[in-house]
Amino acid sequence: MKLVLDAMGGDFAPEETVAGAVEFTRDFGHTVFLVGDEKAISHELAKHDTAQLDLPVIHAPDAVEMDEQPAMAVRRKKNNPMVVGMKLVKEGRADAFCSVGNTGAVLTAGHMVFRRIRGVHRAVLTTPFPNYRGLHVFGDVGANTDCRPEWLVQWAHMLSIYAKVLLNIDNPRVAFLANGEESGKGNQLIKTAQVMMAERNQLNYIGVVEPKEMMAGKADVVVTDGFTGNIVVKQSEAVAKFIFQILKEEILSRKRAKVGVALARPAFKATLERLDDREYGAGLLLGLNGLVTIAHGRSKRENIYFALKATSQLVEADMLEKTRHKIETLLRLQSQLQEEWT
Amino acid sequence: MKLVLDAMGGDFAPEETVAGAVEFTRDFGHTVFLVGDEKAISHELAKHDTAQLDLPVIHAPDAVEMDEQPAMAVRRKKNNPMVVGMKLVKEGRADAFCSVGNTGAVLTAGHMVFRRIRGVHRAVLTTPFPNYRGLHVFGDVGANTDCRPEWLVQWAHMLSIYAKVLLNIDNPRVAFLANGEESGKGNQLIKTAQVMMAERNQLNYIGVVEPKEMMAGKADVVVTDGFTGNIVVKQSEAVAKFIFQILKEEILSRKRAKVGVALARPAFKATLERLDDREYGAGLLLGLNGLVTIAHGRSKRENIYFALKATSQLVEADMLEKTRHKIETLLRLQSQLQEEWT
Repeated sequence: MKLVLDAMGGDFAPEETVAGAVEFTRDFGHTVFLVGDEKAISHELAKHDTAQLDLPVIHAPDAVEMDEQPAMAVRRKKNNPMVVGMKLVKEGRADAFCSVGNTGAVLTAGHMVFRRIRGVHRAVLTTPFPNYRGLHVFGDVGANTDCRPEWLVQWAHMLSIYAKVLLNIDNPRVAFLANGEESGKGNQLIKTAQVMMAERNQLNYIGVVEPKEMMAGKADVVVTDGFTGNIVVKQSEAVAKFIFQILKEEILSRKRAKVGVALARPAFKATLERLDDREYGAGLLLGLNGLVTIAHGRSKRENIYFALKATSQLVEADMLEKTRHKIETLLRLQSQLQEEWT
Repeated sequence: MKLVLDAMGGDFAPEETVAGAVEFTRDFGHTVFLVGDEKAISHELAKHDTAQLDLPVIHAPDAVEMDEQPAMAVRRKKNNPMVVGMKLVKEGRADAFCSVGNTGAVLTAGHMVFRRIRGVHRAVLTTPFPNYRGLHVFGDVGANTDCRPEWLVQWAHMLSIYAKVLLNIDNPRVAFLANGEESGKGNQLIKTAQVMMAERNQLNYIGVVEPKEMMAGKADVVVTDGFTGNIVVKQSEAVAKFIFQILKEEILSRKRAKVGVALARPAFKATLERLDDREYGAGLLLGLNGLVTIAHGRSKRENIYFALKATSQLVEADMLEKTRHKIETLLRLQSQLQEEWT
């Protein structure tokens, strides 16, 4: 298998991206193309023992600078690592592209290079999300801020395939996120999506969930619009950070508590690990004619390792062809429904 | 001052509602009308020393049952505590109505009895929300799931008055919630609201905030639609609960950690208190011709006490007249703008 990594992406590139790719390649024997500034990448590679490893460097010198609009920069500078890396996949020289951070730029480059799968309304950004029982698949988390109900219905089917692969379950429970748990709850978008879903779905559809049910793990797939989804992900991170900040303050202001928490440190560490979504690999941009994953911008080498591993699992599971097949089935079902009505 | 309390509202009524009202009346000397089942309320009152206290009981026997649609029940059963209690305020016999839980029913009853202030697009549900620096005012948190941008602009002005009273600050910083911190971020609703706000506002408007900035306390007023706002509040509660659940599990599975956390218990308790929004009194339903506050459905006696206290502060600050005045000024400004354009 051959994967492509944007070696210049994220806060700790290229040091951590290259290190993560080296470890991944050593463990799994796959090829990883490292795309970006050749000199900088080679400098990092020289720090590791890469004999026997297949880590070709592809020069793509156009960096997206901090003060540039990422989407604009990707369009203007064609030799940036994202466009160059995705083209390797498009030309059949590699199986998937793994990016690090900067969702806006990845979205633009992905649409430019791969275009949408025929019949897909919009590409959807989805991510594994921790809940009390384990993980569920959550999306859209930021690709589309204003959505139509038929997009959400389609995403429900697409994310269901992703959940099968990621969570290794047969018949994922699928729900829409709403402001209450009763059927009919939601804004107009979610209400209409519920009606459409009831008419035509081939899923294990369980209706709407509200946040507490989502966090309890009641559904394996939770679908929402990209504005709400993005805010939910960011609010969850912000609340978690806020709680640990306050807890730290209250502990540090008490002598006995300070001693106590020193004893409890492993428990805190384990909690933080269960909350850290970087452990779960990478998000997935679904709906394009190419497999594109997105690792967190704060990714360190072990996170890059997991992101590449998650990407390789999606390639092995033939995620892209399964999605294409599902979309075609859905479109056929829809035209049958229309025929019956007319 | 005379307040009205829905003595039958919430999970622990009438025991906790009556007890909270007794303590509040004892400390502040105000009158609190207790509305609901006369026998049940009198039974609770008899448990306390109420000599010198002014706690008239108003019989309103029509209970909203668990299996009823609350909004429907309020319309059908006119002798329910909400409608009867609000009428006391409308007739001038009391200054404000404090409800407990069941937002849907309160909304319906509030619109039925008081109607909207002339010029107000929609009533907005707002609540104090904890952030790292203290509190901000957040709304809409569930009254309107589908919104128009001009509503959000109007709410920004209304919530700004509330923030002045609640947080005791002169010129509250006002922002819209968005999926990023750059100007122009958001869905179509928030983008249009930003443009409208830039054209006509008399506020200390600082643009958009994303969740991490909101939780850092960058704004004193954060405005959003009622679907997003409700989900943000519920997701925050769910994440907090989730974190403490995991932390507990991880601690209980480790002997040393268990000992340690026993020493740190006061720090945990203090943290939970800083996170508990019930401490801050009550939410406010703003935009009706009557002052209506909403305490949490899980409220115990001390929460009812704080809710009544917060309600009395809003009466003292002449919240209702200030809102009316602000709406009139805004409407005048809008028609001036229209004249200039034509």
